Order: sequence, then structure tokens, then C-alpha cells
Amino acid sequence: MSSTNPRGTRRGLVLVFTGEGKGKTTAALGLLLRAWGRGMRVVVIQFLKAETGRWGEVRAAQRLGWEWHKTGRGFTWQHTRPEDDAARARAGWELAQTKIASGQYDLVLLDEFTYPLHYGWLEPRAVVQWLAAHKPPSVHVVITGRHAPPVLLEFADLVTHMRKVKHPFDAGIKAQPGIEF
Amino acid sequence: MSSTNPRGTRRGLVLVFTGEGKGKTTAALGLLLRAWGRGMRVVVIQFLKAETGRWGEVRAAQRLGWEWHKTGRGFTWQHTRPEDDAARARAGWELAQTKIASGQYDLVLLDEFTYPLHYGWLEPRAVVQWLAAHKPPSVHVVITGRHAPPVLLEFADLVTHMRKVKHPFDAGIKAQPGIEF
Repeated sequence: MSSTNPRGTRRGLVLVFTGEGKGKTTAALGLLLRAWGRGMRVVVIQFLKAETGRWGEVRAAQRLGWEWHKTGRGFTWQHTRPEDDAARARAGWELAQTKIASGQYDLVLLDEFTYPLHYGWLEPRAVVQWLAAHKPPSVHVVITGRHAPPVLLEFADLVTHMRKVKHPFDAGIKAQPGIEF
Repeated sequence: MSSTNPRGTRRGLVLVFTGEGKGKTTAALGLLLRAWGRGMRVVVIQFLKAETGRWGEVRAAQRLGWEWHKTGRGFTWQHTRPEDDAARARAGWELAQTKIASGQYDLVLLDEFTYPLHYGWLEPRAVVQWLAAHKPPSVHVVITGRHAPPVLLEFADLVTHMRKVKHPFDAGIKAQPGIEF
């Protein structure tokens, strides 16, 4: 549990969307939209994805005035300097800590955050311990990505595993703008 | 396949988010947001959910100017007149057919649409045959809900099964506004 809630009052959850299926980041975006619809304050810290990306969600966030931080520079198989990735992941996590602890947001999305944990650039247990100690009780934190480490799954309040049943790539259909990115 | 795509050009997909886990409607909302971010035209036909609902997503859609149609009146275990549900489902599907075929939208979300199919209020094979015959090639259709019938899964281009690993309800934590609804 990320925090206690003896009287059933509002409490911030730690939610994890993991698995190899389509819909992890997408579900997180839907959560942000729902929260924003209720007037909640949202912020996105995006790990790993290329800083030059111009995905539909970034454009949408700009139109909505959502704060959106890109800290990564693409998936690791696209380049060959893992020490840079580790440094970027640490910087991204420091930014995330600042945002979570600030009390200025109701929902913080750490998008693709499982990868720095999985690759060992950040220590999963230290991350969980920091959340347990420093996340304000009312703040929701959403974490997406494949290979969520067991310690994070154990700590989270909600975990959904997205399983790929069928994907158009398998049928040779290229990624569709507005759907895949 | 919902349509052929011999030259790799843009084509509308049929996407299904199913399973018992959290994130089906949420992922669909994320898709809408992404599509909207790219200037695509979106519309939501919501099956089954109560017409008086004031969820965060409805408020968000209002703020964004998204077209949103509520055709259901709540889950079936909340009342005892299945003939009304069947009639509402048929009316909702007729509306959906009009919207899909109109050419006025790039993405049509049929939210909780699997339930009318699962309960037999609509015939899954007839729905799929209609989509195969009448969906314009460029239109994306997203369908959410548990118990997606096999004929729909077979027809869809993308299927993700959301598996519940852990849910805060199980720990006695009540639904959180902005997260669950």
C-alpha cells in the first residue's frame, strides 16, 4: 500500500499498467483526461521516448495546457550509449520526485518508467521506498511500461497487465497516426 | 481484417479492448485524446452506462467539444427490464451505424459495446458483417468491454486483453473520483 486510509476518505493510488499489449500509455492518457475533466491537476514525466517525438498525445497535451516533460531520448536499441540513458533516467526520476512531493499536482504520470527500473538505471526498491515515504497521501501516481519489477507490483494499489491478443503489425499493417502514436 | 491495404496507406482499424482488468474504457479515451491531438474527428457512443452519469470523461468531453452519446441506462444488474436494454442497445447500434457510415468522423468509440453482444441483444455476426460491408476504409472503430465475442475478436485488427492483477477494491479502498470514474 502506498498510504493508509482508515476512514475511507480520498487517497492517492499508485497504478501500474504493464504487459506487452497495446494500451498502457493509452490507458494512462485516458486517466489523465478523466482527472482533468474533474479539474484535477496533472503532469507527465515521459521516460525513454525521443525528445523530438511529435506524437498525438504531446500535441493534445499542448492544446490542453498539460505540463509534459520528456526526459528520455528513445528506446535503447536505437543507439549505443547506455551511460547517457542512465543519467537521463536519474534526472527524470529527480524531476518526478520534485513534482510528486510538490503538492501542486493531483496526478503524476511516469510514462515508460518501468524501463529504467528494468534496465537497472534506477533501483526499484529505492524508488518504492521513496514513494512510500514522500508521496503525499492524496497524490495519484501512474506508471506505465513493460517488465514492471515485482517490488513495484507488490507496492502498487492497482495493476493491470495488458496482454497482446492481436496486433496489426503482425498482419503487416503499418502504424497509424493518431492510433499508435 | 476490416479492410484491405495493399499499398500500406492509411487505413481504419477495428480495435478491441477487452478483459476484466482496469483500463479498457480508459485506453479508449487515451486513443481519442491522441487522435484529437492530431486533429482527427472523434465521436463516442456509450452503451449501458447510466444516462445520468457524471463521470470525469463526460466532463472532459464536454470541455473538449467531443460528441458523446449515452444510449444505455446502467448495468443490467441494477434493474429488471431486459427488454428495455435490448431496445436501447438496438437504438445505440443504429446510431453507431449512422456515425460510422457518415464519413464525418475519423474515430468512433463504441464504449461497453461488447455487453449488448454478449447478452444477445445484438447479433455479433450481423454486427461484424455490417462493419465489413459499410465501415469506410479510413475510419477507426474502437470497441470496449468484457466478454468480447469470438467473432468480433477474429474480425478485429487489434485486440488487447486487460487482465486484473491487483485492484484497490480488493483491499477495501473505495473508488476514487478522477481515477475510476
